[in-house]
Amino acid sequence: MSRIAYVNGRYVPHMEARVHIEDRGYQFADGVYEVIAVVGGRLVDGEPHLDRLERSLTELDMAMPMARRPLRVVLAETMRRNSVHDGMIYLQITRGAARRDHAFPRGVRPALVVTARRATMPPDPDAIPGAKVITAPDIRWRRCDIKSVSLLPNVLAKQQAIESGAYETWMVDDDGHITEGSSTNAWILARDGCVVTRPLDNAILGGITRQTLIRLAHGAGVDVVERAFSVDEAKAAREAFMTSTTNLLRPVTQIDDAVIGNGEPGETSRRLLGLYLAYARGETESCD
Amino acid sequence: MSRIAYVNGRYVPHMEARVHIEDRGYQFADGVYEVIAVVGGRLVDGEPHLDRLERSLTELDMAMPMARRPLRVVLAETMRRNSVHDGMIYLQITRGAARRDHAFPRGVRPALVVTARRATMPPDPDAIPGAKVITAPDIRWRRCDIKSVSLLPNVLAKQQAIESGAYETWMVDDDGHITEGSSTNAWILARDGCVVTRPLDNAILGGITRQTLIRLAHGAGVDVVERAFSVDEAKAAREAFMTSTTNLLRPVTQIDDAVIGNGEPGETSRRLLGLYLAYARGETESCD
Repeated sequence: MSRIAYVNGRYVPHMEARVHIEDRGYQFADGVYEVIAVVGGRLVDGEPHLDRLERSLTELDMAMPMARRPLRVVLAETMRRNSVHDGMIYLQITRGAARRDHAFPRGVRPALVVTARRATMPPDPDAIPGAKVITAPDIRWRRCDIKSVSLLPNVLAKQQAIESGAYETWMVDDDGHITEGSSTNAWILARDGCVVTRPLDNAILGGITRQTLIRLAHGAGVDVVERAFSVDEAKAAREAFMTSTTNLLRPVTQIDDAVIGNGEPGETSRRLLGLYLAYARGETESCD
Repeated sequence: MSRIAYVNGRYVPHMEARVHIEDRGYQFADGVYEVIAVVGGRLVDGEPHLDRLERSLTELDMAMPMARRPLRVVLAETMRRNSVHDGMIYLQITRGAARRDHAFPRGVRPALVVTARRATMPPDPDAIPGAKVITAPDIRWRRCDIKSVSLLPNVLAKQQAIESGAYETWMVDDDGHITEGSSTNAWILARDGCVVTRPLDNAILGGITRQTLIRLAHGAGVDVVERAFSVDEAKAAREAFMTSTTNLLRPVTQIDDAVIGNGEPGETSRRLLGLYLAYARGETESCD
């Protein structure tokens, strides 16, 4: 079946889905986006994703192109037209098309693009091998809390991982602390037995999977400590893993040249993945 | 007359000039651009601009979509179809359209967009008033030497200036030194009588107007010192100005609340503008 995309009010064949060359997303990276998992025909954490979308827009002084209820209708219709029962929804909002000038244009409608694609979601936990990550200086801007399409440094970091035979790059701030991956949040099971992830600040994106997993972990009696951790601490950790909408929870078994634990996905990582999978499938707390 | 844009091999009406929603420029800011002034039907510093374009592409491991000679033909034809005798050429190259994934796609052709518009170029030096700039922390990424479309922080900085009743924001690094403006290079005439601009590093874009003006100044016996300068030094400077392709040389008469000199464009600023105007008009050195 041809894929269908929603572009500024119309459902069009994916091949013909285009935006104007002066859309500010194209010329200035002046836009935001979300990726939302679809499991069993339902959005996983739809409301928190849309909350974050609205926050990103607010930080950039941009308006929602439509209210949340009709936006939800567009998301559902895009899923339906693409027969996505399990997979991903991608939505992008930019400041709209206007004659090129850095300053915000006046009276321009924001642009909205929505696509959906099928994927095995949630992935089979037994089929997820441990991943290798590398570390590299975090060269991004200082508002990584905004989920903008200004992703060129993330692209370069991910490519650097691929070219190193790794899956992801964990980025390191000037204090030697890990911020996050190019498209994932970073976690460790520290030597003292605590699950640790960096607290929210302007240096990382507030991952929805991160937020949900903290809640699920607490509910299961696993405490999560939000504090910065160094590359050295990560390399010496008992376990490590990363989270994101597309990866859910992916165990990390190697950081640069350091093997983590015994080189296999750890027990706590597996347990947290199990908690998250049950949640994503709607077996535990309601998802939205 | 309808404006015409060049988009991936075709000349199309500007209104219909579109790129795919999965063009990596739109989803990842994975592209670069140049703006080149056109004076009297000729590109000003065409070769240095195309040199910089190639450098930006090389830094991002991207290929030129075509060799320089046919690219020059496209630029000339876009100027011709838009009857641009004096104005601007804009060209943007992205890594092309591919299914969304951070890592570089394989076997994808880079995308090329070229537009041209008329403008009074060079502007009348007597009609250029002194400009006010504000200062703000430089929150951009650490590869500002690459002329990428990842411009969201620049957009925010420019908008901050506009909302403050200013023309431009000069950004300030962690050492209190001015890096550059949102779309201009920053200069001062220091207390000791030296013209000063920041040396090239990863924190600023190597402006073509900056480079040419340094050469023209030297040729006229005005020495330019390339060193970092602080906000305090700028506020106490005898003169200040900014350069860019679209602004050429714009005197700065106020930085935050500090009036520069007597609040009018200074003598050295005017002299350097005169040198540059003669150059841009082709009256002195050949321009390309």
